[in-house]
Amino acid sequence: MPNYYLFKPEFLSEFTSKVFKSFGVVEEDAQLASDVLSKSDIRGIDSHGIARLKSYVEMFSIGRLNPTPKISIVRDKKSVATVDGDSGLGLIVGPKANEIAMDKASKHGSGWVSVCNTNHYGIASYYSLKALERDMIGWSMTNTSSIVSPLWGAKSMLGTNPISIAFPGYKNPPIVIDLATSVVALGKVEIARRQGKSIPEGWMVDEKGRDTTNPSDMFKGSLLPLGSTREMGGHKGYCLSSLVDILCGVLSGANWGPYVPQFAMYETPPEKSVGKGIGHFFGAMEIDGFDEVNNFKKRIDQWIEEFRSTPPVEGQEAVLIPGDPEREAEIDRSKNEIPVIQAVIDDLNLVARTTKVPFDWEQACLEVIGNKS
Amino acid sequence: MPNYYLFKPEFLSEFTSKVFKSFGVVEEDAQLASDVLSKSDIRGIDSHGIARLKSYVEMFSIGRLNPTPKISIVRDKKSVATVDGDSGLGLIVGPKANEIAMDKASKHGSGWVSVCNTNHYGIASYYSLKALERDMIGWSMTNTSSIVSPLWGAKSMLGTNPISIAFPGYKNPPIVIDLATSVVALGKVEIARRQGKSIPEGWMVDEKGRDTTNPSDMFKGSLLPLGSTREMGGHKGYCLSSLVDILCGVLSGANWGPYVPQFAMYETPPEKSVGKGIGHFFGAMEIDGFDEVNNFKKRIDQWIEEFRSTPPVEGQEAVLIPGDPEREAEIDRSKNEIPVIQAVIDDLNLVARTTKVPFDWEQACLEVIGNKS
Repeated sequence: MPNYYLFKPEFLSEFTSKVFKSFGVVEEDAQLASDVLSKSDIRGIDSHGIARLKSYVEMFSIGRLNPTPKISIVRDKKSVATVDGDSGLGLIVGPKANEIAMDKASKHGSGWVSVCNTNHYGIASYYSLKALERDMIGWSMTNTSSIVSPLWGAKSMLGTNPISIAFPGYKNPPIVIDLATSVVALGKVEIARRQGKSIPEGWMVDEKGRDTTNPSDMFKGSLLPLGSTREMGGHKGYCLSSLVDILCGVLSGANWGPYVPQFAMYETPPEKSVGKGIGHFFGAMEIDGFDEVNNFKKRIDQWIEEFRSTPPVEGQEAVLIPGDPEREAEIDRSKNEIPVIQAVIDDLNLVARTTKVPFDWEQACLEVIGNKS
Repeated sequence: MPNYYLFKPEFLSEFTSKVFKSFGVVEEDAQLASDVLSKSDIRGIDSHGIARLKSYVEMFSIGRLNPTPKISIVRDKKSVATVDGDSGLGLIVGPKANEIAMDKASKHGSGWVSVCNTNHYGIASYYSLKALERDMIGWSMTNTSSIVSPLWGAKSMLGTNPISIAFPGYKNPPIVIDLATSVVALGKVEIARRQGKSIPEGWMVDEKGRDTTNPSDMFKGSLLPLGSTREMGGHKGYCLSSLVDILCGVLSGANWGPYVPQFAMYETPPEKSVGKGIGHFFGAMEIDGFDEVNNFKKRIDQWIEEFRSTPPVEGQEAVLIPGDPEREAEIDRSKNEIPVIQAVIDDLNLVARTTKVPFDWEQACLEVIGNKS
């Protein structure tokens, strides 16, 4: 682990918000976007938080993001709708489209919104968690630029396309499912590459679709879908990733499959466009339409307690409940501090110079961990 | 492959229908149930078709199934509802609850129905395919009796809990996703056991949660969730299986997790009950609420054609589209005949004796394949 620095979450989110405002984003939207990024850091998903600010800034700089989007319902019928994000920041379009889904759920029992003309929206579980505040079951998915090959394919055709769904407990914290439909996140391959280690078989294939354990194949090769091989269910991961791509991209009229535009500027853009931006899909179901809310929540508690008491296999402490790892990070970090590595500090300094938003990180840093040399 | 016999689908479905009627099921319901089972055989999913008739008969014989269920909406709010199947045959409750979901979608844009007090409902894709006839996107899930361990658990806590979703094409046949959330179906372990072969690592654990390649461990051990190990994403398969268990079982007030009652009589029943029967979850979304139906279908065609043209890895002919294998079986079998193995013929003869419904299989048999000795 390289050096890292600890900051109060507020320091980072204030900087984020000011950076967005410097591009003309209005106060309220900038706060919202900064809240989404911050939630990722607080929940311990460092890859999707402040570490991504530089990429958002690049997209603003080259005019790919509209700072004042008019987010609109382009078509709807009671519980369902298609929403156009007007090229807005995904961190703004996402929460607003999710709000539309939840408002529909209040009125029609459930709400389902497919979104086009949007961009990366942060962590999927930010949205499913929001529904819990309104006693709803929350769903969230997004398609992302292609890095995953379909089973038996020698080309990246799908993104890591995450699915999140959250169920509220009564006394217990909620069950929060949030999973990429690829076998592993690209970040894990990147870590192995930096450390000069090989990766397990079944994570990646090279540009000809041949199995590889060399993480440097990440630049031309593909991740495998969850399940990896036919024998281990790779067709199922491919199906799940397709499901997300279709609900988010094909249904809304966004780009899909290999045509989903990349997030980072240094990647080669797709050869053509088949729709508008990337796509999200949000769902909310009012629990009260199925049962008394507390009855359901108490059954969720029972489920959680039953699964927690599963006898663990030798060498493991306990069976986890979906959402446990992020919740543990959240308990820890919201009381304490967010760790930021040197490489991200460097990025943020660059952002500060580009946007002229002051970033007094040395003053704000609470502690330096690791080798200070 | 042992001997097998070929029959016209009609011969098998007429027998099935008469068998259900012999228990007091009304004509229309018996036809419906027989249609669901038959669809499974026609789509090449032999494990879920006529081969299961004996188990349904056993459940009727011991009074676990109500031949004349009053299927009712116990609570609803516009697009969502909880349905009680009144202990009816899953093959009858399923189609009727799915109909409720689709009717809700016609009225409210989408319909979502969680079902308790039901039983095994056949193949998940029977239901999602139905929605296509009404220009809807169809969803179907069911929980099943526990045979899958959660990641790091040394006990079967979840079923193979399938998820199906279907999207219609314009000129192309539909995309039909139908997957068990376990790494593999139990049937594949059973086949290895009969053939005296070992199974791949990552499919199963023994009763202490230790990796095993011995298929005979199926009686006391557990299948692993899709992804198998932590490193290969086993926590994701566990999450997906949990998602199905909660939407079907916990939400509706059915049994869930290790308490889902078994289908076959020879299995040990769960130690207690935490709800009514097993649970299903059906969803339907009206495409017209998102976009012009044909616009969406044409984009699905584009998606299909794009994915079909993915360069395949060496040694594979082509990337498949979800639903291809079942569709190929369907094209073949609906023109021709359904193969039935000797063991199933024996079961059906037993069913015939129990129910006194004639089963003139020797006369109806079109051809015997394999060794006739």
